[in-house]
Amino acid sequence: MKSHLKDILEQVRQGQITVDDAVKKLKDFPYQDLGFAKVDHHRELRKGFPEVIYGLGKTNDQIIKIANAILDKGSNLLITKVEESVYTSLKKSLPQLNYNDLAKVAFLKQKEPPGGQGKIVIITAGTSDIPVAEEAFVTCEIFGNTVEKLYDVGVAGLHRLFGEMDKLMTAKVLIIVAGMEGALPSVVAGITNIPIVAVPTSVGYGASLKGLAALLAMLNSCPGGVGVVNIDNGFGAAYLASLINHL
Amino acid sequence: MKSHLKDILEQVRQGQITVDDAVKKLKDFPYQDLGFAKVDHHRELRKGFPEVIYGLGKTNDQIIKIANAILDKGSNLLITKVEESVYTSLKKSLPQLNYNDLAKVAFLKQKEPPGGQGKIVIITAGTSDIPVAEEAFVTCEIFGNTVEKLYDVGVAGLHRLFGEMDKLMTAKVLIIVAGMEGALPSVVAGITNIPIVAVPTSVGYGASLKGLAALLAMLNSCPGGVGVVNIDNGFGAAYLASLINHL
Amino acid sequence: MKSHLKDILEQVRQGQITVDDAVKKLKDFPYQDLGFAKVDHHRELRKGFPEVIYGLGKTNDQIIKIANAILDKGSNLLITKVEESVYTSLKKSLPQLNYNDLAKVAFLKQKEPPGGQGKIVIITAGTSDIPVAEEAFVTCEIFGNTVEKLYDVGVAGLHRLFGEMDKLMTAKVLIIVAGMEGALPSVVAGITNIPIVAVPTSVGYGASLKGLAALLAMLNSCPGGVGVVNIDNGFGAAYLASLINHL
Amino acid sequence: MKSHLKDILEQVRQGQITVDDAVKKLKDFPYQDLGFAKVDHHRELRKGFPEVIYGLGKTNDQIIKIANAILDKGSNLLITKVEESVYTSLKKSLPQLNYNDLAKVAFLKQKEPPGGQGKIVIITAGTSDIPVAEEAFVTCEIFGNTVEKLYDVGVAGLHRLFGEMDKLMTAKVLIIVAGMEGALPSVVAGITNIPIVAVPTSVGYGASLKGLAALLAMLNSCPGGVGVVNIDNGFGAAYLASLINHL
Amino acid sequence: MKSHLKDILEQVRQGQITVDDAVKKLKDFPYQDLGFAKVDHHRELRKGFPEVIYGLGKTNDQIIKIANAILDKGSNLLITKVEESVYTSLKKSLPQLNYNDLAKVAFLKQKEPPGGQGKIVIITAGTSDIPVAEEAFVTCEIFGNTVEKLYDVGVAGLHRLFGEMDKLMTAKVLIIVAGMEGALPSVVAGITNIPIVAVPTSVGYGASLKGLAALLAMLNSCPGGVGVVNIDNGFGAAYLASLINHL
Amino acid sequence: MKSHLKDILEQVRQGQITVDDAVKKLKDFPYQDLGFAKVDHHRELRKGFPEVIYGLGKTNDQIIKIANAILDKGSNLLITKVEESVYTSLKKSLPQLNYNDLAKVAFLKQKEPPGGQGKIVIITAGTSDIPVAEEAFVTCEIFGNTVEKLYDVGVAGLHRLFGEMDKLMTAKVLIIVAGMEGALPSVVAGITNIPIVAVPTSVGYGASLKGLAALLAMLNSCPGGVGVVNIDNGFGAAYLASLINHL
Amino acid sequence: MKSHLKDILEQVRQGQITVDDAVKKLKDFPYQDLGFAKVDHHRELRKGFPEVIYGLGKTNDQIIKIANAILDKGSNLLITKVEESVYTSLKKSLPQLNYNDLAKVAFLKQKEPPGGQGKIVIITAGTSDIPVAEEAFVTCEIFGNTVEKLYDVGVAGLHRLFGEMDKLMTAKVLIIVAGMEGALPSVVAGITNIPIVAVPTSVGYGASLKGLAALLAMLNSCPGGVGVVNIDNGFGAAYLASLINHL
Amino acid sequence: MKSHLKDILEQVRQGQITVDDAVKKLKDFPYQDLGFAKVDHHRELRKGFPEVIYGLGKTNDQIIKIANAILDKGSNLLITKVEESVYTSLKKSLPQLNYNDLAKVAFLKQKEPPGGQGKIVIITAGTSDIPVAEEAFVTCEIFGNTVEKLYDVGVAGLHRLFGEMDKLMTAKVLIIVAGMEGALPSVVAGITNIPIVAVPTSVGYGASLKGLAALLAMLNSCPGGVGVVNIDNGFGAAYLASLINHL
Repeated sequence: MKSHLKDILEQVRQGQITVDDAVKKLKDFPYQDLGFAKVDHHRELRKGFPEVIYGLGKTNDQIIKIANAILDKGSNLLITKVEESVYTSLKKSLPQLNYNDLAKVAFLKQKEPPGGQGKIVIITAGTSDIPVAEEAFVTCEIFGNTVEKLYDVGVAGLHRLFGEMDKLMTAKVLIIVAGMEGALPSVVAGITNIPIVAVPTSVGYGASLKGLAALLAMLNSCPGGVGVVNIDNGFGAAYLASLINHL
Repeated sequence: MKSHLKDILEQVRQGQITVDDAVKKLKDFPYQDLGFAKVDHHRELRKGFPEVIYGLGKTNDQIIKIANAILDKGSNLLITKVEESVYTSLKKSLPQLNYNDLAKVAFLKQKEPPGGQGKIVIITAGTSDIPVAEEAFVTCEIFGNTVEKLYDVGVAGLHRLFGEMDKLMTAKVLIIVAGMEGALPSVVAGITNIPIVAVPTSVGYGASLKGLAALLAMLNSCPGGVGVVNIDNGFGAAYLASLINHL
Repeated sequence: MKSHLKDILEQVRQGQITVDDAVKKLKDFPYQDLGFAKVDHHRELRKGFPEVIYGLGKTNDQIIKIANAILDKGSNLLITKVEESVYTSLKKSLPQLNYNDLAKVAFLKQKEPPGGQGKIVIITAGTSDIPVAEEAFVTCEIFGNTVEKLYDVGVAGLHRLFGEMDKLMTAKVLIIVAGMEGALPSVVAGITNIPIVAVPTSVGYGASLKGLAALLAMLNSCPGGVGVVNIDNGFGAAYLASLINHL
Repeated sequence: MKSHLKDILEQVRQGQITVDDAVKKLKDFPYQDLGFAKVDHHRELRKGFPEVIYGLGKTNDQIIKIANAILDKGSNLLITKVEESVYTSLKKSLPQLNYNDLAKVAFLKQKEPPGGQGKIVIITAGTSDIPVAEEAFVTCEIFGNTVEKLYDVGVAGLHRLFGEMDKLMTAKVLIIVAGMEGALPSVVAGITNIPIVAVPTSVGYGASLKGLAALLAMLNSCPGGVGVVNIDNGFGAAYLASLINHL
Repeated sequence: MKSHLKDILEQVRQGQITVDDAVKKLKDFPYQDLGFAKVDHHRELRKGFPEVIYGLGKTNDQIIKIANAILDKGSNLLITKVEESVYTSLKKSLPQLNYNDLAKVAFLKQKEPPGGQGKIVIITAGTSDIPVAEEAFVTCEIFGNTVEKLYDVGVAGLHRLFGEMDKLMTAKVLIIVAGMEGALPSVVAGITNIPIVAVPTSVGYGASLKGLAALLAMLNSCPGGVGVVNIDNGFGAAYLASLINHL
Repeated sequence: MKSHLKDILEQVRQGQITVDDAVKKLKDFPYQDLGFAKVDHHRELRKGFPEVIYGLGKTNDQIIKIANAILDKGSNLLITKVEESVYTSLKKSLPQLNYNDLAKVAFLKQKEPPGGQGKIVIITAGTSDIPVAEEAFVTCEIFGNTVEKLYDVGVAGLHRLFGEMDKLMTAKVLIIVAGMEGALPSVVAGITNIPIVAVPTSVGYGASLKGLAALLAMLNSCPGGVGVVNIDNGFGAAYLASLINHL
Repeated sequence: MKSHLKDILEQVRQGQITVDDAVKKLKDFPYQDLGFAKVDHHRELRKGFPEVIYGLGKTNDQIIKIANAILDKGSNLLITKVEESVYTSLKKSLPQLNYNDLAKVAFLKQKEPPGGQGKIVIITAGTSDIPVAEEAFVTCEIFGNTVEKLYDVGVAGLHRLFGEMDKLMTAKVLIIVAGMEGALPSVVAGITNIPIVAVPTSVGYGASLKGLAALLAMLNSCPGGVGVVNIDNGFGAAYLASLINHL
Repeated sequence: MKSHLKDILEQVRQGQITVDDAVKKLKDFPYQDLGFAKVDHHRELRKGFPEVIYGLGKTNDQIIKIANAILDKGSNLLITKVEESVYTSLKKSLPQLNYNDLAKVAFLKQKEPPGGQGKIVIITAGTSDIPVAEEAFVTCEIFGNTVEKLYDVGVAGLHRLFGEMDKLMTAKVLIIVAGMEGALPSVVAGITNIPIVAVPTSVGYGASLKGLAALLAMLNSCPGGVGVVNIDNGFGAAYLASLINHL
């Protein structure tokens, strides 16, 4: 690998090279062509984290080959949205692979990632939201963040939230996971000045429209300070929270 | 008018007549045929309140004729969704007509309606929700209820809600009016055991989808005890709350 | 448990304590932290009914632990949206658990709940709507209400509704369950002055959009007096109806 | 005009010519090319009614030229969805043009159309649905049908419908026009065996979604015998009803 | 059964009795209360066809009991949306039951229904639309109509439609079944004056939105004469077509 | 301007330079920074046509400044979605500006664009679709194509289409513009092997959902060979058709 | 077969026969009536490719009969959307049938199709989009085109796209397949002047709405030159691209 | 004002007081009851910024009274979504009020807010997105942030983005504003590790669905690091970005 993006960016920040030169180098960054995939070995330098495998719609064979390409570079491995039966199958080729069965996430940590500066607190409205929260949890950890969980403190019993405010207030960033009416991010945004990454979940039925109701509620939060990611996207929430936590 | 529905229903409750006989009488109840409208003079007996005029999509002339038919029977008059310019025009024919310009409701009370037993408290999340709340207010009043207002206590500053809890807790029924994320009914349902009639409003923009976001949130309320009416339907909320308050 | 919410609320109503003081006590109310759940033992005092377990999205192990926490407090247990296979599994740990297989509701009554004042009548438009109606039925019963059923009286044969009017008219509150065009709440609202809790069901196909058609119809009911809950939400309808019936 | 479609179709029915020959002739049918429009002078023969001008999205000049082309052939003229200001402008060029201001339909009858066999009864749920019903009325009349109106008999006061059943039962086809929850076609279909053409209207607000709620309700009618046309499409309803009435 | 609806309606048509008297009798019409169902034995008189069982959402036991109640009255039996496994199970209790496995319709004809006057032609755009068309076919037959099929003549090869025009033109009513873009009813409406009942199907994927695309297309048909029923509702189309064919 | 994209691409095609080198040069291409806009003077080289101004959401002043920047380079000017009042205002600064009032497009041709190889035929279903077709027409012309118009040949009178087949068959590419049910592209795709660019229009009302019905229909075309652009996007259709015509 | 469409069209282009005569001949073109299907043997002449079987919603038996009818004419066979279990079953009757298990497409090439003039390059944003791309690939090949694949070059690592620009720039037409945010067609359209056929895929979850998000993004592409087909419609994209490539 | 939230929070962070005590104090925080509004004077302490007035749905009189209440406390004033005519009217009572006519935001800075640590760069895809970007700009400034603008660098000419990378890379947080296909946040997220707040705009027409297309695209961003706010919500984006920038 000819050059490290981090160095390049540092040089840009310090005015040592022009951005023009930086961009020209970008095109020379390495990727590994597997035919069905072009593994972006450069991403770890560019984004701070290596490429993550989205498990849906890929064959086991494709996942294994991409995983090996990533592991061969010494990077940490994260595979999201993996059914347990797929994990069992992957495990045969990748015996050190770990699995969070609530989150349906497989992972393998080969080295310590750069640590974040503060703490990320992951909050759920209910117990049924935990699978999405756990996806965020595994992602935050493998991205080098200190994380704490605060589950089942939704609006049906707000005293539970109030009773855990000291844990909540120690966060640098909050990830709030809620389905149904998705009111919890608004409530928390009304009482704190901590940036919130809100994750709607598909928990609910009927007019929850598979999470659209919670999504819309979060996008319309009256109190400010809320950024929203896709329904059930614990991974994406952790990604953004981790970027903020590494500032 | 041959028979009063109230009497009939009382007789049914007391077993003095069969419901069969009661239903047979229903068909004989009076309505007044204006060609473009069949004014249901029987509704006051059947439902407790006289027919209410929905102002949209009717010509001024039609509204005036229906209004006169209702007033001629000595009933109270309520016209919803009436633009001020229409009211001004109606006023010429109906000089005693009153108007709530926030609610865009015209009304004329000719007699005292039967009183409700408890109090209805009307709550809004924000100031922009007031027009819908006022429609509920005027309707509650003309239907004979004691009403109190509690405006602008939404989730952006929950201490305002907590600070007004004593007013809230005196209600027999709550009407809660909220736009944007529509979280307030859920929050209140989490801390009280008072039946809630929730009214989503079209306050908001973009992903509020003209009130659909708030509507969906209210339908998905995690805490129980919430019944929802149409977007911006202050009238319908008051109707249901009044029925409950007259139990 | 330091204080009973009911007492507190009574004191508020009688002006013996300020609401400020009441709210301050709220935060001290007990909940039991199971890690994945914070069981709200205070809810029974606050809402009149103990916490109810929403069965979807929870592991069997989570359900059992929450159920035991509730039962240990001597409260009645209600678990909604439970597949029969899950129930069979739960039954091993909770041998006294009962199951309504139409409603997919598991329940265990340990004590007699406070009784409602009137009767709740549950109406369905068709036979296919019965599962949702039965969820409402089990919930109404465990919440202490007298309930009567009136099934399959939809608009395809209105004489069946008229023939059962005497049963219908004895209700203090109506729960009306209907799929497809969802017209029945409007029809009943046109002929009675009893508050109606309307439950759209996902019965139908194609343009029923899994119950959205019925939901929209009920929200747009021309006659007043109708409050709507989520699609297939028999539990939520019973919750609201029970609150009204306990007024 | 070389051949009359009616004659051709008659010959087909009687086996005098093959349909192959009939179709070959189709391509030779006349149309008049105005550049911006190809006026289909053949339609009257093929469909029983001449081409009708859809007023939206056309310039006054375009409408006038098409109208003159139709009138020049001695056909009756019907222009739908015409604002009053446009009509006033058209009137200058077409002084004999008539206008139904409720329906926003302009028309000019030059000859008597072939009469239908039975009667079409047009029903509305409310007064606000009348504009759409009037569009159907004008269309039915200019297409040669006997028509009767039965307005404002919706579910808010079903005794009005029952009280007019004798008028309703004389129809060969029913056109039922309703907004909001759109329940009336279902109710009528439950008690008659007359074919129903159902027209949802955009009367309502909020969750009526500009008539979608009524449209979906009508498509999901539990009782059979209901065919649905587009929202506010009084013209289309009359077209279908007229075809049935001319059978 | 005290009175036959047909006789009553005849008397109304001939002015021998008032509709008032007719309606009064309606309430006395018989239905059989099975608890979970109120079988409407009166429907055959009122609508011309007996009650039809909608198979979805009912237990086998419920279906069998309703079916027996209908058969006991000597009526013909029709059960729609029945999976083959359910049919196999029903067959044990109802050995004479027949099954159309394309349509997933079970039926048993005990007597000859009153015949229609003309012929119904059922058209499909493609082969994949046949299941819905067959549901219409079975229904038309058991309702006493002469039916002919014209399958796979969609817009991808219009010469197939033109080549079968002589069959098409003999119809009194057309049922046109199409998925994907749903263009066929518009095309046929452009070249005939026969009333069309259009049935959108869920054939397609992606932006067909499970039949919504075809539904919307049919509702927006530019040529007139098209009435639309629910997606995949072959039964409903046959119901309406049969009413028209029996005029 | 250091280098012409066309030359670069030619060199790439002929293997004279690597694409790597070509891409590196891309970043050096010129754009003019107006603060509120970065006018892409390079686009004409890269795409074959200069930057086109999308008129909506821009102030008159912004449009004029961008227009002048484009004209100063000697390029042809095209401004879409411009209301007549805006055009009148622009005209003061740009006196040679032309306007197509049906299309609401302003344009000024300073030089002859490179000509296309074949002919583009623009077809509309109805007269109301002409504004969108005219937007396509002006765009095609200013992009150097030979264009022919074929308006008002929709499915309500297919013989008009058949009668103009010789004009249609001379096209290298077809642009087909249709609202309502949007069936025309499917019909034409069924009988030709010419690539079709389909443009849904917002012509229609109610369930046309402002053009969504036509859009969905076109996306679901059963016959192949149809590419779809945005609703009312005559410009985009012309852009794609012109690229194909210049192959 | 009396006449070849290709010859007819050639004669039309050369003015040797009128289109009128051409159209008249169309109706005489052959199709084979299998009852459940009318196999359009004429399509190969008319469209350049023979009829293709859409596998969904057809029984195995229907597919085999249509396939045999096509093969008997010496045409190439293509069956889309075929599950592997169905293929295995078909294989017994059609032993030479091939299968692309990623694309779920079965095919059998009996003769060489007419070759296209240029090259089609098929691009995917990610590995999960490959099944749709492969459907396009098989279709392009059997339609006689030279095809190249460029997989996994989405916006998460644009340097991969830049690194493969030389492959991309050799195309006459591009097929770009992308799910999730569907941004790749816009990005490519911004830097090339090659016509793009964009295929949204259902890759994603939650707010991807099964591909609607990508579909809408592609329809709204700011850079011009993009035509869109249905979600997951690799076949349709290949069809259009092949028509363009054969120009 | 008894206590400053900031102090309380600091004490919590330093363990000097428990959060329990902190929360108890919350309820005592001041708000000013204007009847139609409860002005939350406490918000500045709690959230870092004072209450902001949402201009839609409020009367001029209400806005002025709330504004005065805020100004009286010495806080800075921000009023969003204010039409110019409303501003002109407000200006009479609040002569020092400023107005950004692109953003439709009124504001009045009375004191210097606490400064952020880094820089916020606001990016737009096009010129038509500027009004929303300007709303973000004014908000960022009044909230004490250093801000830079980078307008019109969308995917139609990516070299403009590359050419401004040095400006972009100096940001601590990015606000990216885009309508139509909303691809820009994904593209930027692919090449940087700076947290992105994405703002979809309603720029576009037809299938942009008033910004829903861009919203969905942003929620489905394949590259991570993107948090989304409501359509056209420049204010909300600035709020979140400011919180992050003040970390």
